This record gives sequence, structure tokens and C-alpha cells, in this order.
Amino acid sequence: MDLNGELKQHSKIFNNYWQQFIRQGEPFTLYDAARHLPLSGGKRLRPFLAIVSCESVSGKIETVLPFAAALELMHNFTLVHDDIMDKSKLRRNVPTVHVKFSEPTAILSGDFLFAKSFEAMHHLDVDSEIYKELDFRLVQCIIDICEGQQFDMEFEKRSIVSEEEYIKMITKKTAVLFILAAAGGAMIGSGTDDEINALADYGLFLGLAFQIWDDYLDISSDEEILGKDIGNDIRNGKKTLIAVHCLKNATEEDKKFLNSVFGNKHASEEDIKKVFNLFKKLGSIEYAKNLAIAYNKKAKEIIQILKESKSRKLLEALADYSIQRVK
Amino acid sequence: MDLNGELKQHSKIFNNYWQQFIRQGEPFTLYDAARHLPLSGGKRLRPFLAIVSCESVSGKIETVLPFAAALELMHNFTLVHDDIMDKSKLRRNVPTVHVKFSEPTAILSGDFLFAKSFEAMHHLDVDSEIYKELDFRLVQCIIDICEGQQFDMEFEKRSIVSEEEYIKMITKKTAVLFILAAAGGAMIGSGTDDEINALADYGLFLGLAFQIWDDYLDISSDEEILGKDIGNDIRNGKKTLIAVHCLKNATEEDKKFLNSVFGNKHASEEDIKKVFNLFKKLGSIEYAKNLAIAYNKKAKEIIQILKESKSRKLLEALADYSIQRVK
Repeated sequence: MDLNGELKQHSKIFNNYWQQFIRQGEPFTLYDAARHLPLSGGKRLRPFLAIVSCESVSGKIETVLPFAAALELMHNFTLVHDDIMDKSKLRRNVPTVHVKFSEPTAILSGDFLFAKSFEAMHHLDVDSEIYKELDFRLVQCIIDICEGQQFDMEFEKRSIVSEEEYIKMITKKTAVLFILAAAGGAMIGSGTDDEINALADYGLFLGLAFQIWDDYLDISSDEEILGKDIGNDIRNGKKTLIAVHCLKNATEEDKKFLNSVFGNKHASEEDIKKVFNLFKKLGSIEYAKNLAIAYNKKAKEIIQILKESKSRKLLEALADYSIQRVK
Repeated sequence: MDLNGELKQHSKIFNNYWQQFIRQGEPFTLYDAARHLPLSGGKRLRPFLAIVSCESVSGKIETVLPFAAALELMHNFTLVHDDIMDKSKLRRNVPTVHVKFSEPTAILSGDFLFAKSFEAMHHLDVDSEIYKELDFRLVQCIIDICEGQQFDMEFEKRSIVSEEEYIKMITKKTAVLFILAAAGGAMIGSGTDDEINALADYGLFLGLAFQIWDDYLDISSDEEILGKDIGNDIRNGKKTLIAVHCLKNATEEDKKFLNSVFGNKHASEEDIKKVFNLFKKLGSIEYAKNLAIAYNKKAKEIIQILKESKSRKLLEALADYSIQRVK
């Protein structure tokens, strides 16, 4: 299964469709800012997931495109605002919106993309009950994403976060949009309740595997190039699954040390290195890796109730991709 | 017509209804931040307008409440984000959300209120065609408001803004939500097309009168207390209708002087005073006042096609209130 080729092909169809929602307009600065991130690339994973889920229950791609556009617009809105909150300077290798334009214009252009997402929903040609259900779920997604982002920020300031809390946080912050993409695609494709539910679970497991693998990738990069990102995460007190596991399993003494480094903006390179060694010693990195793999397996298992098809194979390949990425 | 009493009575019914959308939740900080502005008062003008418009075409208040809630949630979202962009410290006499909480939490809580607005729409019990139409119009409103806010920010940096551009800006930034409140209320109340269109125009004229009167109030306050606000507007280069009129009618020499003060953060009190005197000399303050009054008249005229009722009288009183406020 050539996942990359399929991703590219779907991406082309999708990009062609959704450009109507990111057209130029006035005032130019607002539109330039709103278009900046959407036009700077991105894998279009959520549209891909929605399209393939729709096709996996024999739905047609044209019917699901407006929904796919709504998801991608919503995703881009959250990235623009998250980057302001996290003070990120780069995304997809280009300056973030608030850096290239200004913070006020970045806030506005995020709001604009948010609105455009709901505009895209109006292009759906489905039963009005299904439209309302999807629209309602999209609203609930945003509420979850806001809650998840706030939890993420608050966890940075806490000394202990349980694994359960971490999973809840990434479910809200990341997985809900995957769940909606998969389940919504199936709803638009007139899937059965069993199919829709299986795809919702698939979206959850895929989203969790993705996010945990991200944590893993950040830290497992070559030790030589270990530096800025991981150092920053630790200096910001970011509670990745690796940090959560390490804090739970460390001795009291190590816990004290960890808490003196997590969230300490001025932590030395040596301290960062020591934290990294504790991650390795306590098996926290392996633990995260294995959990991502476990979710990947669950994702693939749950969709076995779908009839065999190229789309199901694509979904399996997408699950594998989530734990094989090297960024 | 006791407008104040009616406003209070409607506000009570409305506040009782919409509290379901601003309930406490977790993470507490996000919910506290999202509740901060909605619970700090406010006249609930947009809900009032939606309710009275609905009643003016013989609709029932219960049917329009979810829509009224959606409007007020949307209005509060825009205020939270505007205050960040404008670096405002106070609103309704309490600290703004980003001051009381933090900027990241204020951005998030604005997004949250935005989502809650669309959640409220789902409580509407109307024909699915009307629901879709109202939802679509609400989306277009947000896009207009984003554009209007960006124009407003850009005008601060421009030396000349035409009256036409100014009217377009405040139409987008302020009037569109009044238009939607009035027209949407009439749609929910099953008004005729003529009634809906008349109320849409009423909303436009009311919104324009409101905003221009705001400009007028800011500047016409007692000269003794003239100071911070007006000084700030001028130092920020804010293009109120008064500034627009003055810049258009000033001599070349005065224009040069005005442009040396507008947008000059370090302008002296003396310069501000000179600008103020130019406003008076060229009749710019009177011009704004008279234009607000003209829109008030248009607002009252256009609704004469509605059948005579207490609601129509209330709408007339509301139009008068828009140009009689002293803050």
C-alpha cells in the first residue's frame, strides 16, 4: 500500500476543492494572514481520514469534501491560536502567523478560519438531520480542544500529572478531531451505526498513537541533535507521557530533582541531560513508544468489522504511519 | 414607554435562560475566564433586540431565546478578543479577561464562547431551513466582524479615511450583529419578507446610530474631564467619524498638524487640546451628532410597516435610546 502516494493524490483533490474557502479578499492583511498557514503545506491528514472513512463505507468523495474542508480549517485555526499561546516562532518551516503579521492580526485570522470552518459545513449536501449532528459534534470538538489546550498549559505548572489525566488531555486536544473526521466521514457515507462507532474508536486510537509518538519522536531524536526542542519542553515543564511516566516512577530524590528542572527556564544543559538520562534509566521513552504501538494495534483491530477494501487497507497503513513517522 | 424597565425585565428572562451556556466546568480557569465577561453585567441589547423583533411580528419569546443567547455569546467572544488586540485594561468597570487571567487563557476563552454561540443555535426549535439560514448568517457576521476589526486597526495607521470607508467599517464591526438580531428575531417569529427586511434595515440604522453616538459621546464629555479616553483615541490614530470629518475639511496646514498628532503616542496634552478645538471649529462633533440622529430617524421610519404594537414602540424607544445615552 503506497500510503504516501495516496496521501498526495487525496491532498491534490482536497486542495483543489478547499481553495474556495481561503481565497484572497479585503482587508488584504487579514486574508493574507488567514491564508498563510493553509498555503504553507501540511499533510491534510484530517481531510484524508474523513475521505477514506467515507469511502470505506462506500460513500463518494464529493459528498465528504465540504466536511473535510471544515476539519482542516478548524485544525488550522487551532494551530494559529496555539502558536500565539505557546509563543512558537516556526511552523511547517515558515514563520508563524503572529510572527509574520502581528499578534492582533493572528488572533483575528484564527477567528476568521474558525468561522470559515462553519461556512464550509454549509456546503454539505446531506440530510438536514445529519448536517445538524455533524455541526453539533464539530462545536463539541472545539469546546474539547479549548479544554485540552488549557489542561496542557496548566499541567506545565503542576509537579504531578497522572497518566489518566495526560490521556484525557491529549484526547481533547488532539484525538477529538480525528474521531470526528473518521466518524463524520462514515456518517456522510451512510455507514451503519457499527461502522460509524468502529471508525470513531479508530479515530481515537489513531489520535492517541499520533500524539504519543510525537512525544516519543521529540525525545528519541539523535542524542547529538538533542537540544533545543526537548530542552525547551523540559524548561517549559511540558508534561509529555514520558515526563508523566518518569515522574511517577522516580525515587523521591529524583522526583525532587526532576521538579527542580521541569519548568525552570534557566535549567542548564547539564541538568537537561540528566533528565534525559533519567527518562532512559526508568524506561519512560520505551514506555511511551510501546503505548503508541499498542494504540496503533487497537486502531487496526477495531476496523476489522469494515468490509475488506482498499480504503480499509489505507486506514491500516495510516495507523502504521502514525508510529513509523520520523517527522 | 419605560425602556429601561423593559430592558431590565427582558434581561432577567434572558439571563435566566442563557446561564446554561456559561455554567462552571473543568478546567476551572478556562470556565472562570469564559464566564468573567458574561457575568460582569452588560445591557444585553442584542438579545433584547432579537426578542422584541420576534415579538413585533407576533412571535413568542421562548422560540427566540436560543438565538438571543447565540448573539450574546458571539458578542462577548468578540469583546474578549478585541480587548486583547486593543490592550484594553477595563471593560464594564472590571479588569478585562487577559488582564485578570492571562493572554493565552483569554484567547482560549474567546474561542470557547465562539463555540458556545454555535452550541446555543442547536437549541433552536425551528424549521431546519430557517436554522440553516440563521446559522449561515451568523457565520457571515463573524467574517464581517473580523474584517471590520482589521479595517479599524489599519485605519489607525492611515492619514486619510473616507466617510464611506468609515461607514463600511462600522457596519461590519458593529452593525451586522444588530442586523442579524433584528432580522433573525423576525425570521424566528415567522415574519413576512417585508417585515424581515424592514427589521434588517432597522438593525443597520440602529447599529450605525449607536456606533456614531459612541464616537460623539467619547469626545463631547465635559471638557474638564476630557482627557484619557479621547487623548488615547487620538494618540492611537483612531479614525472616528469626527476625525474622518475633520481631516476631510481641514486646511492643508491643519491637515499636516492633525497627522502629526494622530497616532503619535507622545502627543502633548496641548496638542490634544488643539485637535479638539479643530474638531469644534470645523463642526466635526456636530456633524457626527447629526448623522447619528439622522440614522435614528431612518430606523424609526423603516419599522412603520410593522403593525402597531408595544414591541414596535419598544423598537422606537430603543432607536431613541441609541442617541440619548450619556454612557
